[in-house]
Amino acid sequence: MVPLAPPVLSSKLPRVGTTIFTVMSKLATDLNALNLSQGFPNFPTDPALLDLVTKAMRAGHNQYAPMPGVPLLREAIARKTIDCYGVSYHPDTEVTVTTGATEGLYAAITTVVQPLDEVVVFEPAYDSYVPAIELAGGVPVYVTLTPANNYAIDWAVVREKITDRTRLVIINTPHNPTGRVWTRDDLDTLAGLIRDRDIFVVSDEVYEHILFDGRTHHSLMTHPVLQERTFVIGSFGKTFHTTGWKIGYCLAPKELTAEFRKVHQFVTFSVSTPMQYALAEYLQQPERYQSLPSFYEQKRDLFLAAIAPSRFTFIPTEGTFFQNVSYASITDEPDYDLAIRLTHEIGVASIPTSVFYEPNAARPKNDYKMLRFCFAKDDDTLLQAAERLCKL
Amino acid sequence: MVPLAPPVLSSKLPRVGTTIFTVMSKLATDLNALNLSQGFPNFPTDPALLDLVTKAMRAGHNQYAPMPGVPLLREAIARKTIDCYGVSYHPDTEVTVTTGATEGLYAAITTVVQPLDEVVVFEPAYDSYVPAIELAGGVPVYVTLTPANNYAIDWAVVREKITDRTRLVIINTPHNPTGRVWTRDDLDTLAGLIRDRDIFVVSDEVYEHILFDGRTHHSLMTHPVLQERTFVIGSFGKTFHTTGWKIGYCLAPKELTAEFRKVHQFVTFSVSTPMQYALAEYLQQPERYQSLPSFYEQKRDLFLAAIAPSRFTFIPTEGTFFQNVSYASITDEPDYDLAIRLTHEIGVASIPTSVFYEPNAARPKNDYKMLRFCFAKDDDTLLQAAERLCKL
Ligand SMILES: Cc1ncc(COP(=O)(O)O)c(C=O)c1O
Ligand SMILES: Cc1ncc(COP(=O)(O)O)c(C=O)c1O
Repeated sequence: MVPLAPPVLSSKLPRVGTTIFTVMSKLATDLNALNLSQGFPNFPTDPALLDLVTKAMRAGHNQYAPMPGVPLLREAIARKTIDCYGVSYHPDTEVTVTTGATEGLYAAITTVVQPLDEVVVFEPAYDSYVPAIELAGGVPVYVTLTPANNYAIDWAVVREKITDRTRLVIINTPHNPTGRVWTRDDLDTLAGLIRDRDIFVVSDEVYEHILFDGRTHHSLMTHPVLQERTFVIGSFGKTFHTTGWKIGYCLAPKELTAEFRKVHQFVTFSVSTPMQYALAEYLQQPERYQSLPSFYEQKRDLFLAAIAPSRFTFIPTEGTFFQNVSYASITDEPDYDLAIRLTHEIGVASIPTSVFYEPNAARPKNDYKMLRFCFAKDDDTLLQAAERLCKL
Repeated sequence: MVPLAPPVLSSKLPRVGTTIFTVMSKLATDLNALNLSQGFPNFPTDPALLDLVTKAMRAGHNQYAPMPGVPLLREAIARKTIDCYGVSYHPDTEVTVTTGATEGLYAAITTVVQPLDEVVVFEPAYDSYVPAIELAGGVPVYVTLTPANNYAIDWAVVREKITDRTRLVIINTPHNPTGRVWTRDDLDTLAGLIRDRDIFVVSDEVYEHILFDGRTHHSLMTHPVLQERTFVIGSFGKTFHTTGWKIGYCLAPKELTAEFRKVHQFVTFSVSTPMQYALAEYLQQPERYQSLPSFYEQKRDLFLAAIAPSRFTFIPTEGTFFQNVSYASITDEPDYDLAIRLTHEIGVASIPTSVFYEPNAARPKNDYKMLRFCFAKDDDTLLQAAERLCKL
C-alpha cells in the first residue's frame, strides 16, 4: 500500500510564533542572566496564603468548583469591589472566577466578537488580545500610542477609527507595557464616543492595585455609561504574587455575565477549587492588597534611582511593575537585537517593546527604541541589574 | 439628557442554558440528596498527592509555568504514554499540559475547525464538544448511538456523514455517558474511512484508566494512520480523583502540537505550577494509575449487585465511572422529569441521558428512557442509593 501523507493543518494564527516572553525567559535561564523580562515576581508568596491552600486541600476541596466560581470567593470579590470602587456586582449573577485574566480576556472577547466585527485596540497591547479577536473572526483596528508624548491617547484618532462595524474596545489600565494610567477624562471621552453605539468594552485591570505617586485607579466600572457595557477583568496572580496559579475574574452586568459564562463553561468549565477557597479567606484582610502600591513604589524608586546615572532615559512609570526606558542615546540597534545582546553581554534580560505593536505595520516601530524592565524582583536583583545597565 | 439603553449582546451560543450538571448538583445539595449525577468522586484524594502540592508551593513553584507545561510533568506524561501504549511523544514538541481536558478539547477543536467545516460527533456526546465547534464557526454532524444495540456504531451511517466538508471527527473512549469502549475494529474502520481525506481526529480519552472485565483501552495513538492526525486528550482529574484541579494534557504530532499551542497560549497561557510539580512526582509510581480499573470495578459491581433486585435494567458498563440504566419497565415519563422527581422523592440525583443528545432533533430522544448514575462514590453512598432505587 502506498503510504499517504497525513492531512495538512492550515494555521488559524499564522502570525503567531514563540512569544518573546518564552524566548527571553529561556535565554535568561540558559545564560544565568538577571531576568527582568517576563512579568512575574522572583520573591516568595506569603506563606499564610500557601497554608490556606493546604488547609483547603485537606478539607477535601479538590473536586469541581461550581462553574462560575466558589460562592465564598465570588462574595469576597464582590465585597472587595465595593470597598475599592463603591460599585456592586451581584456574586451570583455578575461575578465569574476565571483561569487567570488570560481566560477572562479570551472568554470576554469570544463572547462579544462575531466574524468581521471591528475591535479597537490601543497598541502597544498585551499579546493575547489580537489572537483572541482573530480566533473569533474579528478585525483588530489599531490606535497607536507612542513614547513621543508619553503614550497619551489621541482621541481624534480614536474617533476616526470607530465605525458602524466597531463592536468592542479593549482597554488596559494601568497599562502593560507603558505603565500609563487612564484618567477620569479618558473615561468620559470614551463614554462620549461610544454611548450611542452598540459597542462593548473589555477592560483589563490586572494591575488595579499597582499605582504610584498617590494615583487613583479609575476602573471602568466607576463610570455608569461604561459600566453597563464593560467586562472588567482582574487577576490574583499580579496582586498576590501567584502568577502560576492562574486565577482571575470577570465582573460584568447580569446579561453580559450570562453570555460570558456560556463561553467560560466550555473553555475551562471551572477553576482550581483549593486555590479559590484559599483566596476567599485571604481576601478577608484588605491590607493584603492595600499594601501593594507602596510595596511596588519602593521597588520602582529603588530601581530608577539606581539606573539614574546610566545613559538610559525614562519617565517614572505611573503603575504596573514595568518601567520602559529609552536607549536612544546609547545605540541605534533595533530593540529586539539589543534585548538579546544585553542578555548575552551583561546578563540582564528585558523585553523589546516593539513586540507589543502590530507586526508588519508600515510604521517603523523599532524607531521607538524602548526596552521594558520588570521590577517585580527582590532588591538585590534590581540593584545588580542597574549596576550592569549603568556600565553601558 | 435622555438615558440611552445599553447595547444588546447577541448570543454566540443561543441554545446553551444552565447545564444539567449544575441543575442536578444544586438540587441534590438543596434537598440533601445522594448525588450520583455530576462525575466527580466524593471520597478523599490521596494525602500523598496533597503533600506534594504543599511541598511544591513551599519550594517556590508559584509563578508562571512554561506555556506548554512544566518540563518534568511533560516528561512524566511522555513516559507514562510509552509505558501504557508503547507510543512515544516528544515532551518538548508533542506534549502540552492543559487546564483540564475541557481546555484541551476546546483548544484542539478551535485549532482545527474553520468556519463552515463539518465535524462528525457521536451522540450521546459530552456537552462541551458542540459549543466549541459552534464557537469556531463549524457545523456539528451527528451520528446517533442508541441503547437499542448497546450503542454500537453503525459505520454505514458514519460513511454517509463524511463529506468533502468534513474536517474533524470527535471520539470519546471509554465513552461518557454510555461506558462504551472502542475496539481495535472500530479504529481500523475509522482509519479506513478517513485515511485518504484531510480529516483530523480529537480523541477524548479522559477515562483511559477506567475499563472493566479485563478490557484494553485502544488509544487512537496506537493506530499509526490515526496517530498522525489525532489530538489525544487526557485528564488527571479523573485518574487521581482531583477533578477540581483542572489539569489535563494533549498529545499530538509535532506539527499539530505547534498549532495547538498557539491557541492554548492565548486561551489560558499556562497551568497551575504547584499542581504540575506535584503530579510530575506522583506519576513516578505507575501503581497509582494501574490500580484504578480494579478500584472502580469493585464500585461498579457493588452498585450493580445492589440495584439488581430493582426494576431498572442495564448492561454492565464497559468503562468510565458511569452506569446507564433503563427505566422503561417503571414509568413512561421523560428522563428529565424523572431525574428531578427522583431527587425530590427518594433523594437520589442522576443525569437524564437525553441531555447528551442534540436538542430540537426530530427524533424523540426521550424515548430512550435511560438515566446515568455516577458510581465514583463511597460504598455507603452507593448502597444507600441502590436501596432507595430498589423501592421504585
Ligand atoms: C495586561 C495584562 N493582562 C493580562 C495578563 C495575564 O494575566 P493572568 O496571568 O492572570 O492570566 C497579564 C500578564 O502579564 C498582563 O500584563
Ligand atoms: C468525556 C469527558 N471529557 C472531558 C471531561 C472534562 O474533563 P476535565 O475535568 O479534565 O476538564 C469530562 C468530565 O466529566 C468527560 O466526562
